Amino acid sequence: MELTGRLTLPTDVDMAEETIELKEALGADALRDCDGTTMPDALLSQDAKTYATYYTTRKDNAWAEANPEEIQQEYLISERVTARGNTLRIELMKGFHREQLKVNETDDPKRWWEVIDRTAGEVVPADCWEYKADTGEVVIQTVPYHEYTVSFLAFLIWDPVHMYNFLTNDWKDAPHQLTFDVRQPKTKRYVMDKLKQWCETHPEIDVVRFTTFFHQFTLTFDDKKREKYVEWFGYSASVSPYILKQFEEWAGYPFRPEFIVDEGYHNSIFRVPSKEFRDFMEFQQIEVSKLAKEMVDIVHSYGKEAMMFLGDHWIGTEPFGNYFADIGLDAVVGSVGDGVTLRMISDIKGVNYTEGRLLPYFFPDVFCEEGDPIKEAQENWLKARRAILRSPLDRIGYGGYLKLAYEREGFVEEMKHIVNEFRLIHQHMQGTGAYTAPFKVAVLNCWGNLRRWMANQVHHAIWHREIYSYVGVLECLSGMPFEVEFITFEEVKKGIPEEIRVIINAGDAGTAFSGGSSWADAEVLVKLRAFVDNGGGFIGVGEPTAYPYQGRYFQLSDVLGVDREMNFSLSTDKYNEINPKHFILEDVEQDIDFGEGMSRIYAQGERYQILCMDGEYSQLVVNSYGSGRSVYFAGLPYSPQNCRILLRAIYYAAGREEDMKKFYVTHVDTEAAVFEQTGKIAVINNAMEARETDLYINGQKFCHLELEPMEMRWVEKV
Amino acid sequence: MELTGRLTLPTDVDMAEETIELKEALGADALRDCDGTTMPDALLSQDAKTYATYYTTRKDNAWAEANPEEIQQEYLISERVTARGNTLRIELMKGFHREQLKVNETDDPKRWWEVIDRTAGEVVPADCWEYKADTGEVVIQTVPYHEYTVSFLAFLIWDPVHMYNFLTNDWKDAPHQLTFDVRQPKTKRYVMDKLKQWCETHPEIDVVRFTTFFHQFTLTFDDKKREKYVEWFGYSASVSPYILKQFEEWAGYPFRPEFIVDEGYHNSIFRVPSKEFRDFMEFQQIEVSKLAKEMVDIVHSYGKEAMMFLGDHWIGTEPFGNYFADIGLDAVVGSVGDGVTLRMISDIKGVNYTEGRLLPYFFPDVFCEEGDPIKEAQENWLKARRAILRSPLDRIGYGGYLKLAYEREGFVEEMKHIVNEFRLIHQHMQGTGAYTAPFKVAVLNCWGNLRRWMANQVHHAIWHREIYSYVGVLECLSGMPFEVEFITFEEVKKGIPEEIRVIINAGDAGTAFSGGSSWADAEVLVKLRAFVDNGGGFIGVGEPTAYPYQGRYFQLSDVLGVDREMNFSLSTDKYNEINPKHFILEDVEQDIDFGEGMSRIYAQGERYQILCMDGEYSQLVVNSYGSGRSVYFAGLPYSPQNCRILLRAIYYAAGREEDMKKFYVTHVDTEAAVFEQTGKIAVINNAMEARETDLYINGQKFCHLELEPMEMRWVEKV
Repeated sequence: MELTGRLTLPTDVDMAEETIELKEALGADALRDCDGTTMPDALLSQDAKTYATYYTTRKDNAWAEANPEEIQQEYLISERVTARGNTLRIELMKGFHREQLKVNETDDPKRWWEVIDRTAGEVVPADCWEYKADTGEVVIQTVPYHEYTVSFLAFLIWDPVHMYNFLTNDWKDAPHQLTFDVRQPKTKRYVMDKLKQWCETHPEIDVVRFTTFFHQFTLTFDDKKREKYVEWFGYSASVSPYILKQFEEWAGYPFRPEFIVDEGYHNSIFRVPSKEFRDFMEFQQIEVSKLAKEMVDIVHSYGKEAMMFLGDHWIGTEPFGNYFADIGLDAVVGSVGDGVTLRMISDIKGVNYTEGRLLPYFFPDVFCEEGDPIKEAQENWLKARRAILRSPLDRIGYGGYLKLAYEREGFVEEMKHIVNEFRLIHQHMQGTGAYTAPFKVAVLNCWGNLRRWMANQVHHAIWHREIYSYVGVLECLSGMPFEVEFITFEEVKKGIPEEIRVIINAGDAGTAFSGGSSWADAEVLVKLRAFVDNGGGFIGVGEPTAYPYQGRYFQLSDVLGVDREMNFSLSTDKYNEINPKHFILEDVEQDIDFGEGMSRIYAQGERYQILCMDGEYSQLVVNSYGSGRSVYFAGLPYSPQNCRILLRAIYYAAGREEDMKKFYVTHVDTEAAVFEQTGKIAVINNAMEARETDLYINGQKFCHLELEPMEMRWVEKV
Repeated sequence: MELTGRLTLPTDVDMAEETIELKEALGADALRDCDGTTMPDALLSQDAKTYATYYTTRKDNAWAEANPEEIQQEYLISERVTARGNTLRIELMKGFHREQLKVNETDDPKRWWEVIDRTAGEVVPADCWEYKADTGEVVIQTVPYHEYTVSFLAFLIWDPVHMYNFLTNDWKDAPHQLTFDVRQPKTKRYVMDKLKQWCETHPEIDVVRFTTFFHQFTLTFDDKKREKYVEWFGYSASVSPYILKQFEEWAGYPFRPEFIVDEGYHNSIFRVPSKEFRDFMEFQQIEVSKLAKEMVDIVHSYGKEAMMFLGDHWIGTEPFGNYFADIGLDAVVGSVGDGVTLRMISDIKGVNYTEGRLLPYFFPDVFCEEGDPIKEAQENWLKARRAILRSPLDRIGYGGYLKLAYEREGFVEEMKHIVNEFRLIHQHMQGTGAYTAPFKVAVLNCWGNLRRWMANQVHHAIWHREIYSYVGVLECLSGMPFEVEFITFEEVKKGIPEEIRVIINAGDAGTAFSGGSSWADAEVLVKLRAFVDNGGGFIGVGEPTAYPYQGRYFQLSDVLGVDREMNFSLSTDKYNEINPKHFILEDVEQDIDFGEGMSRIYAQGERYQILCMDGEYSQLVVNSYGSGRSVYFAGLPYSPQNCRILLRAIYYAAGREEDMKKFYVTHVDTEAAVFEQTGKIAVINNAMEARETDLYINGQKFCHLELEPMEMRWVEKV
């Protein structure tokens, strides 16, 4: 029996017939439009749900132009300029794209801007600078050779995503879409009414897909129309004096631009968040959720579903925050870049279903002669599949221009194969969960569950040399048989829950993911030492627990059995020797890939074993501490072999090695997901080549399997 | 005519005849004994100066045993131990070698020791801990899961260098030499008298070679007789309550063991020195110089010369400090590990002559079947020769067992060759200096001239992976045609001298060599920005000017045109592109070696040019700033090519490119030293292979030279 459903396809105005053909061939049960495409009327009568993309903050330039004071705003920081004399002129818009952003001259600069002497680290008093509207400059009274910045508000006169799509797809004639701020009173009334009207005039639409609500993540372009700044988690464009005054009232202290501008780092997710920024995020979540609920209620009142796209204007909706469920959404849809970004969607609670947009998008950058969209689809699916087996999406779908996929030889066949595997998972799991180890694994950082699966990321699944050695930890975990929690230092101080047996800390020193100054908090150290001493496991990657203090760089170097040489202890001899014979490396045959591989790590203490070295430096070290254990990795990029090493490291750290072979497959490129309630086991081959593997159940060899490249084999558990 | 003189040879009791043979063959004019060797009487009548090694602090166990309270002391820090309950026992001597060190139970522990809670960063009150002499433990009232250390005094019951020589040479029967502290009253009287007696009874000795004066640099062994801690600059073994009470009086504030123990880092030269440690160093220099002068005066009163060995017990004699010249020494001798350590000797003022001990020492570790002493001698000489041409030693010599050199085939020939080249330099330079550029180059760090040529070193010319990319800068400079100053941040604040045109800052973030918190001092930044703006040059290597503050990691990123990505600005797009066409790289044909190569460097601003990249990261960047220029290197290990790159970088940074070809040789492996007053030019080939090179004078090609491997060719300047 052919399986159908659980699939959404994009369409376009000139693709009615082909859409129907593909819908039938792939068993799709939903159709959608995209930014830049239109649903053909002919499809509205098809036997499929219809999704309509809905923009709350743009696609209405008439309104924006008529209400320029309610256009969205962003906090910008000027260039840093060094004074050479006693006065300095800083041109605010230098380096920004003037078609995207325009200085806000309406709201009082002296109230809402900040000029900072970055050399002295002091705010320049408001009477020592002046804004010159005619030249767009701020003139400052300066100390010679001090460096200055101006933090200022600008209107977003071109929606960043529209601008991005416009530039990427080389659109020519489309007018630049202005933004407007739904949080402000006039616009709020207007937008709510408009949504009602829209619902009334679109009875054929089943699902209103919000893209998203009110505030775009930070995405700024430079004067050459190149991306200048992009932070998928950024709140810098969610501001306006109207909102900030409310924030001041709520928070009970005066607002400062520096809360948002943050030395020019704009509260990158890598920054240890300040109290003020955490307050601001909380405030925004409360307000955004309230307002979003109003829109969702309207949609529901017309008998339609409300779906949120996790992206673009998602700021303030933090799907793992405390207020998200209050919105009352029916569904969330998001782009699946890998296992981590899949879990970012599939782990969301408080909605009826989740949907993942698989890659590649049907865009000309991949569907071109040099592109290999089939390979991209396969690689994406290999990562997505193992995550789905642990935390399933309810639906999948595609985006972009259907024409491109339709015309690409072999691509529709590949889609068919993927969609079928997806449906098989649901058929075999029957709504039950895959087996997980009888303990939880926790990832410890400054963000905790609020930014579950988002650690060490810059922009949604984009590779950076600085991060892949850490993102790999989460990518491995996204498809592993563990329940994963994300916890904060505050939670550690309150008490580590009993069910957590292994805690992971992974990141560069000073970042929110390693923890920065959190490691100077004695209470944190005491709680974690007690946890490990009493049998817990601690896994550190890169620069875990790093904070130079009182003679140590890694504050839990006693637990980890390693520290990093920051030159101050070069005079101390180290006698590190390798001994790779260990449980963690039993299956491993290839060289271990530590990615960028944190340098200058040395083992110390009396209870360590070094499993891997690079010259005199250590890369993989285990240590015992009281009744507990730790494992240190110099880095852990994603690979099937590293998944296996991490699997073993976690069981080892937990002191539960004997549990590992309850369900187990021998080849490192293979994994098993076991659905005990339905008696089905999925054995997946994560390699692009054929693999042989033995399946173990309760420590006994159950069967030998010869798997095709990338195969998913379903085995009946007797 | 065969040249003679300027050469010191070691000898031994059974080598009288061979010594005479070699003395004649090599034209030596001085003979010496070594630790573990004895001068044969037969040699005392030879036509040569005789040096006698003289130990002020050891080789008299009877005295030490009779005066145990005046044995030397060292501050030690116990292991770091984490409390698991409310009480903790720390075994003080765990991990130390009990034949080398013994807990000082004589002086009141409560007055001179310190127990520190390293987790809270607090001193444990003296009534919350107790020393148990019977078990050698300190029992502490603790907070569970806090980590504790004990700083305590121990007697040095085996002289560290004697122990080192004993272990290295596998001596069996020699009794362990105890130490005694000449600073203490009884011992002082005794030692002075003994020196007088010794002078009286050794009329045949011309030169008393002190090894050295009173305090050994820190050299501690572990419980397996392995080196545990070695810092060639360390003051930890120069303490005793007797001295510390004097220090308190001099400094005017109470002493704390933490001033010396320094979180366990023992004031490594890499630490930004605290005020208290700088005070302690100064106090020690004053006192050591005073006492050393007394000894030197005694030596002089017997018509002998006093020579200081720059090593072993040299602590407190800082040869570039303010008090060194007061000692009144005739000479300094030291080991020449490379060009840097040669300059450490040859740049010393306040003595009549300097002598360098060339490598290899005639020890069995090199003079064995696997060893290649000839190659070691050649490599050592190549580095020494270029430094001698800039700042000549007056004499050279060798150390160890002469028998080994005598019996090694070809080694005496090699010595002959080296000694002859050395004498030729003196013959041609006639006491004049080689040409230097018409401006000075300054190395900026926390130590300045006090530790001239000592930057980024752990232990006298020992290679470490963490430092060679910085030591290379000084090694290059040691043989370059520049006058080099070493300046501190305080000096920068007082005003950069006119003649300095290029300032170099090279080191890892947080170290005394980069500068650490010195870069948070606005005055330093203002002075350096003004310097470059007005035409000065700034060269940064590794993590120059690094201090995370106000949105920048490199505080002079505006001057340097680069910053380091510490993850907080990953969201900011960088569009770095390489353009290797530049004055600095004109001669360069090989790949550039950046050593460890600081990662994550990106260029920023509007006036930079990137000359070298590693993927998306930059490695060599020039920038202009006002009328001045900067050059950034990701690292600069020593190599002939890197010397050339640095030469060009300095001329470029100074804005004096046109001056470079005043005297110039084209091949990067060759260098020229020009003695304008004598009309002689030395062209040296630093490669082990033959090289062809053109010599330019005043921008004009003067001649073409075909140089043998390692050749030094003397050319007459017309």
